[in-house]
Amino acid sequence: MSQVRDEAADVLVHSLDPEHPANHICTLCAKFYTLGWVTGTGGGTSIRHEDKIFIAPSGVQKEMLKPTDMFVMDFASKEYIRKPKVLKPSACTPLFLAAFTRGAGCCIHTHSQWAVLITLLVEREFGKDACFEIEEIEQIKGIPKGRGKVGNLGYFDRLRIPIIENTAHEEDLTSSLEEAMEKYPDTYAVLVRRHGIYVWGDNVHKAKTQCESIDYILQLAVEMKNLGLPWTK
Amino acid sequence: MSQVRDEAADVLVHSLDPEHPANHICTLCAKFYTLGWVTGTGGGTSIRHEDKIFIAPSGVQKEMLKPTDMFVMDFASKEYIRKPKVLKPSACTPLFLAAFTRGAGCCIHTHSQWAVLITLLVEREFGKDACFEIEEIEQIKGIPKGRGKVGNLGYFDRLRIPIIENTAHEEDLTSSLEEAMEKYPDTYAVLVRRHGIYVWGDNVHKAKTQCESIDYILQLAVEMKNLGLPWTK
Amino acid sequence: MSQVRDEAADVLVHSLDPEHPANHICTLCAKFYTLGWVTGTGGGTSIRHEDKIFIAPSGVQKEMLKPTDMFVMDFASKEYIRKPKVLKPSACTPLFLAAFTRGAGCCIHTHSQWAVLITLLVEREFGKDACFEIEEIEQIKGIPKGRGKVGNLGYFDRLRIPIIENTAHEEDLTSSLEEAMEKYPDTYAVLVRRHGIYVWGDNVHKAKTQCESIDYILQLAVEMKNLGLPWTK
Amino acid sequence: MSQVRDEAADVLVHSLDPEHPANHICTLCAKFYTLGWVTGTGGGTSIRHEDKIFIAPSGVQKEMLKPTDMFVMDFASKEYIRKPKVLKPSACTPLFLAAFTRGAGCCIHTHSQWAVLITLLVEREFGKDACFEIEEIEQIKGIPKGRGKVGNLGYFDRLRIPIIENTAHEEDLTSSLEEAMEKYPDTYAVLVRRHGIYVWGDNVHKAKTQCESIDYILQLAVEMKNLGLPWTK
Repeated sequence: MSQVRDEAADVLVHSLDPEHPANHICTLCAKFYTLGWVTGTGGGTSIRHEDKIFIAPSGVQKEMLKPTDMFVMDFASKEYIRKPKVLKPSACTPLFLAAFTRGAGCCIHTHSQWAVLITLLVEREFGKDACFEIEEIEQIKGIPKGRGKVGNLGYFDRLRIPIIENTAHEEDLTSSLEEAMEKYPDTYAVLVRRHGIYVWGDNVHKAKTQCESIDYILQLAVEMKNLGLPWTK
Repeated sequence: MSQVRDEAADVLVHSLDPEHPANHICTLCAKFYTLGWVTGTGGGTSIRHEDKIFIAPSGVQKEMLKPTDMFVMDFASKEYIRKPKVLKPSACTPLFLAAFTRGAGCCIHTHSQWAVLITLLVEREFGKDACFEIEEIEQIKGIPKGRGKVGNLGYFDRLRIPIIENTAHEEDLTSSLEEAMEKYPDTYAVLVRRHGIYVWGDNVHKAKTQCESIDYILQLAVEMKNLGLPWTK
Repeated sequence: MSQVRDEAADVLVHSLDPEHPANHICTLCAKFYTLGWVTGTGGGTSIRHEDKIFIAPSGVQKEMLKPTDMFVMDFASKEYIRKPKVLKPSACTPLFLAAFTRGAGCCIHTHSQWAVLITLLVEREFGKDACFEIEEIEQIKGIPKGRGKVGNLGYFDRLRIPIIENTAHEEDLTSSLEEAMEKYPDTYAVLVRRHGIYVWGDNVHKAKTQCESIDYILQLAVEMKNLGLPWTK
Repeated sequence: MSQVRDEAADVLVHSLDPEHPANHICTLCAKFYTLGWVTGTGGGTSIRHEDKIFIAPSGVQKEMLKPTDMFVMDFASKEYIRKPKVLKPSACTPLFLAAFTRGAGCCIHTHSQWAVLITLLVEREFGKDACFEIEEIEQIKGIPKGRGKVGNLGYFDRLRIPIIENTAHEEDLTSSLEEAMEKYPDTYAVLVRRHGIYVWGDNVHKAKTQCESIDYILQLAVEMKNLGLPWTK
């Protein structure tokens, strides 16, 4: 209602195309809300489009986002070219940038409960340095082999998702996220202990469907643990 | 259909602004229904707006509320200035007023099953006097530090939510709710054993997102218990 | 598409009033589908309106019902006054009539998984003759005390829902349903082992909200069992 | 956006009738998305209509399908008569054809987590050659007795669903799917270990409702296992 807007920069977020990033982030986040990924203003989404980064703000109900809520950053200079005056930029921004620097076109951060539970189960059973590992689940085929590699993982491939420790401030996750990206150069996701997950992809379609595939696998893995079924052979 | 309305007072609930309290309570309750918070006419929501309190009625399907269903009370005199003739005022009203008296702008009462289960688990494991405690979960950062304090809880802070015993009549919860508010002056929520939870906030946005964050944490805590994972270190 | 209709009787199901029984059954069943109560054409709903009974047909996707799909029966003579030619009347009809004969205005039959699981848990732990019993859960207050009695159950009252054995043919449940109604004259619901539940109420509003309250309690009771929490003190 | 279409063949997928196969697959898949059956582009649906087969493409978000996304195959010659140029045909196509060859009018493939979990539970408890078996659950009556037989299974009949081993490539499932169809000629579904399920029916209505009934039973069976309740007597 009372949002003061930077009128000159509004053209950046006004479009009739539902796939314009400013519109797309709104429809994606509304969908993510129904999946339980962005409860209570948690989580976030960012799209890189040509030389610009579009980012959902912090502290806003994600199922209620409007295109005019978006922050827009120049990717080369990392300077905001649009800042809604009454909103706070997302603390996830440096983490999104880490993904974009490695070629991602879209990055999604969720507080999925399945992600949180998996980080706790892995810690208890395999220790703090272990990553989440699972194999022989069809949905693994929804995840690409890795940046610069052709095609997706196969059914007999083992999916590995690294886990980093949470920090008091979200932006302080950046260096350990980047380390995980270096150590697991093929990964498209990093779990954050007791917090959630970051998933990225070459474009919006891939980031969204990879995030769904991984969340499906994490939920399945929790149910398997409940039933005493092992994740690997 | 047959609802007899107090015509003179209808102007209090007629507005084209979706954020007018009479409209807002309807859209919030419809959303809460899909979250399982207000099943079978359970639960309720109230908004304080300037010098008036808007309250959803008792015994109405919460996903079907209409603005004309709202009770309106003068906050200073605690007298109803609008009473839909065929509806009953909510038995939660004195509990909502307890929150408003302490500065809240909106108060939400849910029958969330996660809330009920947590009150039973805490009683079994820590006794009747214990409150629910959890720490090192990112979503805790969605809860403010306390009335008159700046900012939200941090990741390493422990979230404590007091639990009061249920009574035969909802209005009889008032004194123990007020006691819990005195004993835990920083809390924005009170669990009611075998019943549900009251959550409030400075305004509608905060009450709604805090209620979501707390419900997320309660659900997560139940799943953790199922998997044998401890709530605190 | 190819449905042959009894044109003379169409006036019975054509109305612009959303609360006309023929319309109301459609919107109720669509809602029940999202609650998992009428999966795969299972379950059903019937409304008594003045001297007529409106009944959803058998074998139709319940979230896709149209007013013209409704069967209409004269309550006094128990003869159909409208029969959609290509549809089959519901096998639940004699069970709905048993409820209407005892004063109900609406009867809902669901295949809720919580209902099925509770019938199995009660049988294992208390034997085939036991009914489901639970106490000190706030949502119990959503259930009336019994036909001809004023008001609803209290928080300290014990809710008892009888359980009857399933039969090969749904209509063969009628006599044991009626027996359960005689033995538990205050009940507004009967569970059917390995099958689901019948819930009725004085009118549509009451049947729907009582069915929701009971389903909430059954789900909670299953979760309590998973966590080792007893249903009664 | 950039999809190059075979203009001459567009008439095959343009219709105002919501039950035209090209439209019907879109609305079905959007519903299946909300049921968790086609997460992350997984799963698929195909309809046989007269002498043509309509098939949803591979790798597309199933809740976002458009009629122009459909592949159309001539059933007699098994040649595509419409291929959207930028989309890939579904790897499920030979499996759908196996069902159509045996008289099916519609075939649905889901990645339901309940299906995956059941294949793991059956393997652990009854070995790799066992099929899933359950009895005395009312919803079993939603499944027909078998091709060429009149009517549906009864409450006292045992439902048996064969399970085949997953393969690296979906199309390589065809021969074992066909073997299972030969060995269990009455089945309308085949589970695929660690993958999901194929369900078919005489027409769209039957395939959809049978798929729902089976998924309901699989979910119930997982919950029964969690509670220590046996599937058969």
